[in-house]
Amino acid sequence: MRLAHLLRPRTVVSAHCDLPCGVYDPAQARIEAESIKAVCEKYQASDDAAFRTRALIIKEQRAELVKHHLWVLWTDYFKTPHFEKYPDLHTLFNEATKLAGASGAKGSADPGVADLLLAKIEQISKIFWETKQN
Amino acid sequence: MRLAHLLRPRTVVSAHCDLPCGVYDPAQARIEAESIKAVCEKYQASDDAAFRTRALIIKEQRAELVKHHLWVLWTDYFKTPHFEKYPDLHTLFNEATKLAGASGAKGSADPGVADLLLAKIEQISKIFWETKQN
Amino acid sequence: MRLAHLLRPRTVVSAHCDLPCGVYDPAQARIEAESIKAVCEKYQASDDAAFRTRALIIKEQRAELVKHHLWVLWTDYFKTPHFEKYPDLHTLFNEATKLAGASGAKGSADPGVADLLLAKIEQISKIFWETKQN
Amino acid sequence: MRLAHLLRPRTVVSAHCDLPCGVYDPAQARIEAESIKAVCEKYQASDDAAFRTRALIIKEQRAELVKHHLWVLWTDYFKTPHFEKYPDLHTLFNEATKLAGASGAKGSADPGVADLLLAKIEQISKIFWETKQN
Amino acid sequence: MRLAHLLRPRTVVSAHCDLPCGVYDPAQARIEAESIKAVCEKYQASDDAAFRTRALIIKEQRAELVKHHLWVLWTDYFKTPHFEKYPDLHTLFNEATKLAGASGAKGSADPGVADLLLAKIEQISKIFWETKQN
Amino acid sequence: MRLAHLLRPRTVVSAHCDLPCGVYDPAQARIEAESIKAVCEKYQASDDAAFRTRALIIKEQRAELVKHHLWVLWTDYFKTPHFEKYPDLHTLFNEATKLAGASGAKGSADPGVADLLLAKIEQISKIFWETKQN
Repeated sequence: MRLAHLLRPRTVVSAHCDLPCGVYDPAQARIEAESIKAVCEKYQASDDAAFRTRALIIKEQRAELVKHHLWVLWTDYFKTPHFEKYPDLHTLFNEATKLAGASGAKGSADPGVADLLLAKIEQISKIFWETKQN
Repeated sequence: MRLAHLLRPRTVVSAHCDLPCGVYDPAQARIEAESIKAVCEKYQASDDAAFRTRALIIKEQRAELVKHHLWVLWTDYFKTPHFEKYPDLHTLFNEATKLAGASGAKGSADPGVADLLLAKIEQISKIFWETKQN
Repeated sequence: MRLAHLLRPRTVVSAHCDLPCGVYDPAQARIEAESIKAVCEKYQASDDAAFRTRALIIKEQRAELVKHHLWVLWTDYFKTPHFEKYPDLHTLFNEATKLAGASGAKGSADPGVADLLLAKIEQISKIFWETKQN
Repeated sequence: MRLAHLLRPRTVVSAHCDLPCGVYDPAQARIEAESIKAVCEKYQASDDAAFRTRALIIKEQRAELVKHHLWVLWTDYFKTPHFEKYPDLHTLFNEATKLAGASGAKGSADPGVADLLLAKIEQISKIFWETKQN
Repeated sequence: MRLAHLLRPRTVVSAHCDLPCGVYDPAQARIEAESIKAVCEKYQASDDAAFRTRALIIKEQRAELVKHHLWVLWTDYFKTPHFEKYPDLHTLFNEATKLAGASGAKGSADPGVADLLLAKIEQISKIFWETKQN
Repeated sequence: MRLAHLLRPRTVVSAHCDLPCGVYDPAQARIEAESIKAVCEKYQASDDAAFRTRALIIKEQRAELVKHHLWVLWTDYFKTPHFEKYPDLHTLFNEATKLAGASGAKGSADPGVADLLLAKIEQISKIFWETKQN
């Protein structure tokens, strides 16, 4: 583990339930997407039919969680001023959730597709943390 | 946002599904526990009966997620050598999950109880990241 | 609603799972929203504390289902050409899902708020059925 | 289906949660069953092993939803007078839910089996709407 | 309950998933119903508003599980010959699931209502074990 | 199993929700594990690809339920004095839940693995009922 990780502030948090509690963090979507990428890699490396079936079952669940976490950010965290400041934000979320679905991580076991999803989540994460600074 | 946060490595990941994918991260439990703390604070600050009921409904769900994420770490990530190296690890997880349950965050709307839960998760997180370095 | 819509054959169906199966129907969101409205009306008509708590528990679940069904339509059914033809579609979905959340049907037990949500869903439904005719 | 049914106002609604809210609609079961039929057709048209596995995963979930929606109608909407007026109603629901399970849509990827399920749901729907007219 | 039942070997099991696996046991519904009764008793013994709200949240979940376990038995375990031999079986299940719903254990915090539910489950259980002996 | 256990009155119950209600029963984990064993046997006896895929889907769900029921016992039922009296209890639960996961019943379709899981659950069950006698 690198020092930067050890030093990241533990108490910086940010609304992910619908009270709303005010705690949101794109890390939730990212961790599930990392899981998808790892599942894809293990799928590609295996020729055991039962293992591959299990990988598809789990990838389906993880991808659903990615979609859910992203939808929550899009609906619950981001407000009108954010969408005005970042005019591509709607499209970005729509593309990211599509990339987690049938035309992306659900429909493919290619780690490269998971990488595309991770890159979209990173774009969203970057904007998210910019809005948290203000 | 502080620099340390910006600099934390995005690609350091760590198994949270049962393929297993090999991606685990105590941040999943911590984010839910932060949510619980924020819910407790809003609960204490409100005297609206319907709002308080909603806070309890949501807190119950978040606390269940904390328990789930911790159980997954305890069963799926940590192995015999870890338990030998950290003899208190079983007790630590048992106490942390109890602190998320009826005798802790589920049974109380005191932000201080959420703080105790967060502190336990931080202890687990510290051990987790130590084991990732080896 | 136009007559053509009223008379559309019941067997014409349209994708709501992520195979994708190709079966989508805004009626799924509408039925849950109607449920929310009915729950709000019963909540307002009752002064029994336990009944009101149960109403809030159920309203929370129904509102979550509304959000989910709308998110699925937004991500899985609607494609780039739709968003080009209906430039307000992103905003419409974002507002509709917000109206199902903390700032709308989850946060309020006012049947009028449920009516606002139903009106948004009707707007989405109208566009949905227009796109199905082409 | 009778014209009166086709023309019934969309805002007439009728209990599908356990408050009860009083909003029930067999369309919920029907939409999921249409999804199953579409999944079966795509399954039969594909020879891609991963796609077929995903189709089975999704079909399993959709069929569970069909069962759930039908069970809710049977337990929560229909009352003793209905069962007296329609003596075959118990059997109809039992057969319909069996047709969604292992001996039907779960156990088979034949679109013809999905058609049998849809026909049973249509029979239930017909009775449901008759009871709503009184 | 007969002695033969009490002494039946623990390894004799009987289908509760939809493969079907062939393992069914009314104990699943009974345990949840016992939980409901205990929740009702604790609800009645408490005058703490937050505790009572939590009791209602949990009772709602447990009652849903009772309904689910009973529905599975009714649809998946019992076959046409059983319904012919026990003509009241449909009604028994319909009444039992209603007793777990809004007009029963969900809608009431009276331990006596939970007792009525438990008695219905016991009637079902008795028939279930009779059919297993043949 | 001792006679006293076999003869224990059915109405003696013991907490499996987080009120807590005080009703716990290792039978919940055991029934799901029996289901897993039956699924494995049917999987081994079949050479139908779709059936085997369905068996893996269902086994994954059942194994998750085994883990959940065991985790609840470990966190919610067992207290410090139990862990002091049975020093191997932590390890027993950790091994049992691992046996339900990727390195056990999830990762294998061998009925022998399910037997190992059932044996662990029986060990836990024995201790559980001993603690209930005091």
